Amino acid sequence: MGLVNAAFSPEALLKLRYGNLGICHTRYSTTGISELQNCQPFVVDTLHGKIAVAHNGELVNAQALRKKVMRHGVGLSTSSDSELITQLLALTPPMEELDAPDWVARIKNLMTETPTSYSLLVMFKDVIYAVRDPYGNRPLSIGRVVPVSKLHSSGAGDEDTEGWVVSSESCSFQSIGAKYYREVLPGEIVQISKHGVKSLSVVPRPEGDLPAFCIFEYVYFARPDSIFEGQMVYTVRQRCGRQLAIEAPTDADVVSTVPESATPAALGYAQQSGLPYIEVLCKNRYVGRTFIQPNTRLRQLGVAKKFGALTDNFAGKRVVLIDDSIVRGNTISPIIKLLKEAGATEVHIRVASPPIRYPCYMGINIPTKEELIANKPEFQDIAGYIGADSVQYLTVEGLVSAVQEGISSLQKDKMISSSNTSGGRVGHCTACLTGKYPVELEW
Amino acid sequence: MGLVNAAFSPEALLKLRYGNLGICHTRYSTTGISELQNCQPFVVDTLHGKIAVAHNGELVNAQALRKKVMRHGVGLSTSSDSELITQLLALTPPMEELDAPDWVARIKNLMTETPTSYSLLVMFKDVIYAVRDPYGNRPLSIGRVVPVSKLHSSGAGDEDTEGWVVSSESCSFQSIGAKYYREVLPGEIVQISKHGVKSLSVVPRPEGDLPAFCIFEYVYFARPDSIFEGQMVYTVRQRCGRQLAIEAPTDADVVSTVPESATPAALGYAQQSGLPYIEVLCKNRYVGRTFIQPNTRLRQLGVAKKFGALTDNFAGKRVVLIDDSIVRGNTISPIIKLLKEAGATEVHIRVASPPIRYPCYMGINIPTKEELIANKPEFQDIAGYIGADSVQYLTVEGLVSAVQEGISSLQKDKMISSSNTSGGRVGHCTACLTGKYPVELEW
Amino acid sequence: MGLVNAAFSPEALLKLRYGNLGICHTRYSTTGISELQNCQPFVVDTLHGKIAVAHNGELVNAQALRKKVMRHGVGLSTSSDSELITQLLALTPPMEELDAPDWVARIKNLMTETPTSYSLLVMFKDVIYAVRDPYGNRPLSIGRVVPVSKLHSSGAGDEDTEGWVVSSESCSFQSIGAKYYREVLPGEIVQISKHGVKSLSVVPRPEGDLPAFCIFEYVYFARPDSIFEGQMVYTVRQRCGRQLAIEAPTDADVVSTVPESATPAALGYAQQSGLPYIEVLCKNRYVGRTFIQPNTRLRQLGVAKKFGALTDNFAGKRVVLIDDSIVRGNTISPIIKLLKEAGATEVHIRVASPPIRYPCYMGINIPTKEELIANKPEFQDIAGYIGADSVQYLTVEGLVSAVQEGISSLQKDKMISSSNTSGGRVGHCTACLTGKYPVELEW
Amino acid sequence: MGLVNAAFSPEALLKLRYGNLGICHTRYSTTGISELQNCQPFVVDTLHGKIAVAHNGELVNAQALRKKVMRHGVGLSTSSDSELITQLLALTPPMEELDAPDWVARIKNLMTETPTSYSLLVMFKDVIYAVRDPYGNRPLSIGRVVPVSKLHSSGAGDEDTEGWVVSSESCSFQSIGAKYYREVLPGEIVQISKHGVKSLSVVPRPEGDLPAFCIFEYVYFARPDSIFEGQMVYTVRQRCGRQLAIEAPTDADVVSTVPESATPAALGYAQQSGLPYIEVLCKNRYVGRTFIQPNTRLRQLGVAKKFGALTDNFAGKRVVLIDDSIVRGNTISPIIKLLKEAGATEVHIRVASPPIRYPCYMGINIPTKEELIANKPEFQDIAGYIGADSVQYLTVEGLVSAVQEGISSLQKDKMISSSNTSGGRVGHCTACLTGKYPVELEW
Repeated sequence: MGLVNAAFSPEALLKLRYGNLGICHTRYSTTGISELQNCQPFVVDTLHGKIAVAHNGELVNAQALRKKVMRHGVGLSTSSDSELITQLLALTPPMEELDAPDWVARIKNLMTETPTSYSLLVMFKDVIYAVRDPYGNRPLSIGRVVPVSKLHSSGAGDEDTEGWVVSSESCSFQSIGAKYYREVLPGEIVQISKHGVKSLSVVPRPEGDLPAFCIFEYVYFARPDSIFEGQMVYTVRQRCGRQLAIEAPTDADVVSTVPESATPAALGYAQQSGLPYIEVLCKNRYVGRTFIQPNTRLRQLGVAKKFGALTDNFAGKRVVLIDDSIVRGNTISPIIKLLKEAGATEVHIRVASPPIRYPCYMGINIPTKEELIANKPEFQDIAGYIGADSVQYLTVEGLVSAVQEGISSLQKDKMISSSNTSGGRVGHCTACLTGKYPVELEW
Repeated sequence: MGLVNAAFSPEALLKLRYGNLGICHTRYSTTGISELQNCQPFVVDTLHGKIAVAHNGELVNAQALRKKVMRHGVGLSTSSDSELITQLLALTPPMEELDAPDWVARIKNLMTETPTSYSLLVMFKDVIYAVRDPYGNRPLSIGRVVPVSKLHSSGAGDEDTEGWVVSSESCSFQSIGAKYYREVLPGEIVQISKHGVKSLSVVPRPEGDLPAFCIFEYVYFARPDSIFEGQMVYTVRQRCGRQLAIEAPTDADVVSTVPESATPAALGYAQQSGLPYIEVLCKNRYVGRTFIQPNTRLRQLGVAKKFGALTDNFAGKRVVLIDDSIVRGNTISPIIKLLKEAGATEVHIRVASPPIRYPCYMGINIPTKEELIANKPEFQDIAGYIGADSVQYLTVEGLVSAVQEGISSLQKDKMISSSNTSGGRVGHCTACLTGKYPVELEW
Repeated sequence: MGLVNAAFSPEALLKLRYGNLGICHTRYSTTGISELQNCQPFVVDTLHGKIAVAHNGELVNAQALRKKVMRHGVGLSTSSDSELITQLLALTPPMEELDAPDWVARIKNLMTETPTSYSLLVMFKDVIYAVRDPYGNRPLSIGRVVPVSKLHSSGAGDEDTEGWVVSSESCSFQSIGAKYYREVLPGEIVQISKHGVKSLSVVPRPEGDLPAFCIFEYVYFARPDSIFEGQMVYTVRQRCGRQLAIEAPTDADVVSTVPESATPAALGYAQQSGLPYIEVLCKNRYVGRTFIQPNTRLRQLGVAKKFGALTDNFAGKRVVLIDDSIVRGNTISPIIKLLKEAGATEVHIRVASPPIRYPCYMGINIPTKEELIANKPEFQDIAGYIGADSVQYLTVEGLVSAVQEGISSLQKDKMISSSNTSGGRVGHCTACLTGKYPVELEW
Repeated sequence: MGLVNAAFSPEALLKLRYGNLGICHTRYSTTGISELQNCQPFVVDTLHGKIAVAHNGELVNAQALRKKVMRHGVGLSTSSDSELITQLLALTPPMEELDAPDWVARIKNLMTETPTSYSLLVMFKDVIYAVRDPYGNRPLSIGRVVPVSKLHSSGAGDEDTEGWVVSSESCSFQSIGAKYYREVLPGEIVQISKHGVKSLSVVPRPEGDLPAFCIFEYVYFARPDSIFEGQMVYTVRQRCGRQLAIEAPTDADVVSTVPESATPAALGYAQQSGLPYIEVLCKNRYVGRTFIQPNTRLRQLGVAKKFGALTDNFAGKRVVLIDDSIVRGNTISPIIKLLKEAGATEVHIRVASPPIRYPCYMGINIPTKEELIANKPEFQDIAGYIGADSVQYLTVEGLVSAVQEGISSLQKDKMISSSNTSGGRVGHCTACLTGKYPVELEW
């Protein structure tokens, strides 16, 4: 429970020093309730020994599957999809030999029971299976741990090592001295053991279905130095900013960013538009939970507590402010107020993604339909509502083309696998923007 | 995790104020490892809704049952017998109607799968089932919550209530304003609901088997004001002291106790022997964990840290010191040293129970055979080993008769149910003293 | 802050392993507010180096002294008398040589500034001064740490040691392997250093004033195995019980105790009266803070949560119940109710000390005058108020004679120093019982 | 103790809701030892009531002053300068009337005892005195709390308020709805009470001495949206970047920053040099304490844990990387390695401040002389040592002119007070760069 740094004390980590295999998962509580029993990995004892499962994602047919498992007589101790997956893997298939569990068959069976969304690590004895659902909805990358001795002539110490690491985001590799190796493909089962990395199988999607990697990983969730589908997230965001400048040009003096996530898009917008890029906001790193609940006075003042205004940089100027997305519309409003009070003559908001209108059932925590600003009556006059001089969003087509442009050129250069793109056909899940879900939802 | 008072803060208890049904269990970690996941009650979701199970005891055939459950495809997430019981109850029996779970049938089925030892509370929706295994190895009592308004003419407030409470030890009833009602009988399934308490069934033991209530509850574990089989534990202990005075009289000046648990036996010994009862030790209530690990010096001094000597009471006198049991023989030795250094001319140890020689597989945490003083070579000269002038134990026969004497007189007076005593035949588990286990142990 | 065991973790104690001198003090917060800044010892830096002061007691003229110190220009950072003492010791006396602090002179000077009450440990560099105020109001004893090597032929390990220890209560010596050596006398300054223990001076009381050791240490506060003025506390309490049996005999069947503090008096009463001693209450060791705030229902039930009734021991009998003191009258009432509901035909309360009527200004936390039951109108019919069949207290004369009888016989046998008893004249502070304070109170 | 958000829980803050005056100070532990007793404010009780003192800075003559205070007989309970100041203020001056403390005289007296460095808030009853030392070494600003009702026509709620706030950095004003009002001048005593803000006195420096505001506040410490001497810190940093581009131009393809503190200087460098500004590093916000101690392997790899490389932005390019300062030289080296491994063909380091060579005795935590890279032999080939293609620092003259240029133009426009700049003469403390301390240091 709690932040990773708090949960894993140096003492706790020290206890792990003698193993050579491990899985973990940081679960961001999407339900608002953090429950200890939902902590991952889920570990259960089976006839053949313990299996452990780490799961990123959310099963679209969880309710139906729960019923099925409980009808078999298994009591489920949590509300978690991940426990459900673990118990499904523990179920002995009818055809299996009693003393030889066939984990790959069990994983394939799981993949026929539920189409999406899941990226899994399954550990049994000395093997880890890395699995991505057939739609590739959640990311999963493999990194290679480089031994120091191969890098430096100076012989490495006792703690030198070589090996493999799997992660949702490739950005985590560098800080432990690993290099990006490749993505796990949609539907792929990869085995990691002392014999190295081996692709065991790629379970196909139904005929005609495209892959459906979550487009919001590019827009918002991922760290900018992560790589998906062969391209760096930062570059995609910068391309979104350029596309936005084409779709929504502004008559203004300067371009700036809501730091820090919108900065690549803001620099892209500045480059494309020719307007100078400046900083207008400085982030207050010490805003913490205590101050998140302002009293009546501060709420009425509408203070932008997270940011300080860099007044002298923009007083008397017309500002284009780039944001990466507007979800509820609560945070942008005090920022605009802050800039205007500090002397901006105009503030034009340009959003580097389309309006979010639909819920996600595949693992992403999106507010209810009613809370989304794009579904409210106020959206008709969004500029007036948030106090901006104008507001414009990137189109869905603009976003998809900014994302897929990079993949196409990689395909052309044969730099990425065709499996990843379904025989040359690229696809992404844009359900939260368009309401088109990759699979039919069962209730 | 932790002590009850720490685990259940006033805030946590406040959250429970609107329910009218609940179960809990304080599990003393017998394995030395306290694990959060072993916390009780176990709660699992089934086709019909959640069931919760609190369990006191240890299944004699746990390993075989685990295999059976796992062969069915259930992954077990802990090493706990109690989770095993919960999953066994969750399993749909083949004959059951799909939409009408027959919990009593399931509980009876469980009781045929495992003979002992368990006292259970099973909660489902608005009903609690209180269950005791056919041998009655672990205790279970029912109490009645008395409404204030029936006691006082002054009308009761909003929080007044009436109801039922079930507990291992009846001593807990008084402090919440409840009265002892009766014991759950060996093999009995009692239903508690808004309709009150109702006995549903008594599952019999195999022909010829006697009940096997743990005799050590009388000797050591239970609080003296608890009632088992119709008699107060204090009275049984006092009777043990009297019996000990008959079996092992001493030529001495005074009788005393190792406070506080041996006091009833010491008073019984004094009454029977005619020797004056005095106090020789005063308990140090502030000895805590920090000081439990003494340094080399204190270990060499052999200091009795938990007790202070009431020197003036016994200096120059011959002391009979009553203890309730001697398990490892480590604690009595520094006490004898303390008394002698403070001026006792002789110290005779009389133990109000027989030597413990065998492990318990039914839920009681007894040291390994090798650690038990009664199995060590030193036991041949136990007095010399612990520094006493003489040491004598109560016999097994003496203990059994001290325990059963009270039951017999109650039976004669028809004050207790014959079910409890198997058609007039009384029986107790004395396995730790005699090696005779109530059921054959499966491995 | 917090209990000693919690505040001093094994890790914290390990840091202290290389020193050979130390002082500490556990301060029971008498004001209800526990403040970290009032934690002892107080340490201040002076021209000559750091001094540290541990203080037990309360200065009768604190307010006047504070003013005096502050007039000199010293800002006081706490409301604590102990800081005041520390700053008074830090003040350079006018006559002192600048580079040779005369701590003994400074301590004597302090003792002329404030007559009582204080027992002090003052540490400076490699010396500790143990000091007791001229009235000897608070206790202070010296113990000798016995090296193992002198006790056992087996050579001692590295941690063996010999030395001295000073404590309010001598009961603490045994558990660290020390022996009671002697008391610090009223007004005495004792120096403890590597050269051993040395009496430096005895500051006299004003002509005609008797010593004034707190009589309530005997009655209630001290552990029964502690020694004051040459006699064991337990023995004094037992004598109080005997005296009570003489002053307040009862027509009853059995004598019992409110465990555990009243047990010596109860045994004394039983011996003197010839009535049998039995146990009627069993202490619930697991009652903790959570349950201290009962809800309306439990408050109305008046449940004695701390105790269980040993019903079978007294049902149908007339009980004399001995208590050590009755302060507010809140706790005895539910106990009587408990005994009567469990079958006692009569309950007679005999209190082994006189009623408390006056506040203490010398370090003991006594409720306000209004809260003391002896000052309430209900006291006229105290038996009716608490539900007893009769209530009788020990007289002040009875208590004083029970305390002083032991000292007189020791004096006769020349076993204790005459300094301790002011030329053969014994005296005790009975202010809380009589309103006669040992010194005039300044306000 | 601990971070502000942890130390001040919402519950703790709620207790403060009924006061209308308060001071606090977050003390960054410069000695490495965080001690509870050094927590501020220091509060002492005096003859006239409590005074509380919050202090930012470090007294250059602390040792001499401590001796002086202790000679007067005051025991100091901490090693803190701030306690010393508090006790100095508590000392009654010889001439003062006994019942009328003259705090302003006492503060002036304090200012004659110690020239620098301190910014103080002194609270006594219903008045706060804001004080800045005559050299103005540490910052201190006053803000005005704006009532909501003056801003909005909508009537304000109960919590609306107006008032004054004093802070080291003006950036804190905005987040509580206050506006920058003015700086406290060097040597000024400002009184804040219900009557508003009133300047009471300006204590002069010795003839000829310039003000000595810490130049490193501009370079490194302050948040960029703070205002000192009439100018925004961000603007000064940007000017330092421009000046650096003039002093140290580079033949390269792109300019970038070590985020986030060097960004204003990097943008200034880019503007002046005409090179494009890009981002090369992305900050890893989740690097915490656990990971700060890398194991041998990670240390050998020299991994830049705090940053991820935005590879695609600079692969194949020559990068000018702007840093704000290089203290020990440990952090820049792995960053350069990271950029080169990710494909940068050249990495040129340009530092927007001069090398630090001397210790600070005025409140800033600077490593020892030996730890400073500028004092090590390796500094001769700093580029080789850290792995850069070239390294250049801003000159002291360049820094001073970048700082003072803004002040001069403000003076010219008569926009800032001449008191602030000593009759038109501007001065700053550059001791850590030049070894020239504003006052002679006493030892």
